[in-house]
Amino acid sequence: MTRTRTATAESPRWLDDEQQDSWRAFAGAMHKLRWALECQLQHDAGLSFLEYHALARLSENPGSTMRMSELADVTNASLSRLSHLIKRLELRKLVRREPDPGDGRFTNAILTPAGLRLLTASAPAHVAKVRHLVIDALTPAELRQLRTASERILQRVETSTR
Amino acid sequence: MTRTRTATAESPRWLDDEQQDSWRAFAGAMHKLRWALECQLQHDAGLSFLEYHALARLSENPGSTMRMSELADVTNASLSRLSHLIKRLELRKLVRREPDPGDGRFTNAILTPAGLRLLTASAPAHVAKVRHLVIDALTPAELRQLRTASERILQRVETSTR
Repeated sequence: MTRTRTATAESPRWLDDEQQDSWRAFAGAMHKLRWALECQLQHDAGLSFLEYHALARLSENPGSTMRMSELADVTNASLSRLSHLIKRLELRKLVRREPDPGDGRFTNAILTPAGLRLLTASAPAHVAKVRHLVIDALTPAELRQLRTASERILQRVETSTR
Repeated sequence: MTRTRTATAESPRWLDDEQQDSWRAFAGAMHKLRWALECQLQHDAGLSFLEYHALARLSENPGSTMRMSELADVTNASLSRLSHLIKRLELRKLVRREPDPGDGRFTNAILTPAGLRLLTASAPAHVAKVRHLVIDALTPAELRQLRTASERILQRVETSTR
């Protein structure tokens, strides 16, 4: 994925074999894990991974309410992508939107009782899947190492200029 | 994402706070990293992450050729998803398909000279991005730990019944 047989004029710093193997393992795990969780959620709850994540975050906030911009932030989604997603959930009556009563320039997303029921019904199977595929696959120390690596990568992505 | 305020009759084994934080960090890193790399490749090469990956894997094989089923395997894609992808690349003349000369029941995908040129031109910027966001964010030991965790997760996903 990150190296070809043909050298180029720029002579970039190619990955060495160990770096290449590590990167491919990580990229493969990301790809297949996401796919497995999308399939599980779609099958069991009719929700995408990001939709589930958005409902879950709303459920944890006081009043099951969050500003759209804040929800975009905690779900790692762009505001435009989240807006489309919330519109779809609104059509299914799982979420509603209203102007922030404290500052009408902002819009709040609010989990509806139907949204909470769907989330509550789908959480056990999703948690069991995450536990089986990730948590139980690693020792507690390995899980902490994965967290550290993830936080470093996340920080790089967030401070990257493009 | 993996826990709601409402208990359910099944009493699933919820994640504890540390497991929850680790899982959220990993899920966030996966999501944002993939997005950053998709944007980089789309901007610099007009390719999706999976398209780039498929071209790169073909370039590394003898004759720049691989059976479709084998390419699906190494790119962690389903065969049906890969078929759509290869059709799109074929329309752009970056790849061609032909029956396997050794066994006509199989179809081979072959990287074209134009495909190799695009890959060669786009590899340096992509490798630089991967290096900046992942490889250089971690020590060599941390990168090895990430590989081990990724391999464990990948193995679980692949042996998971659904």
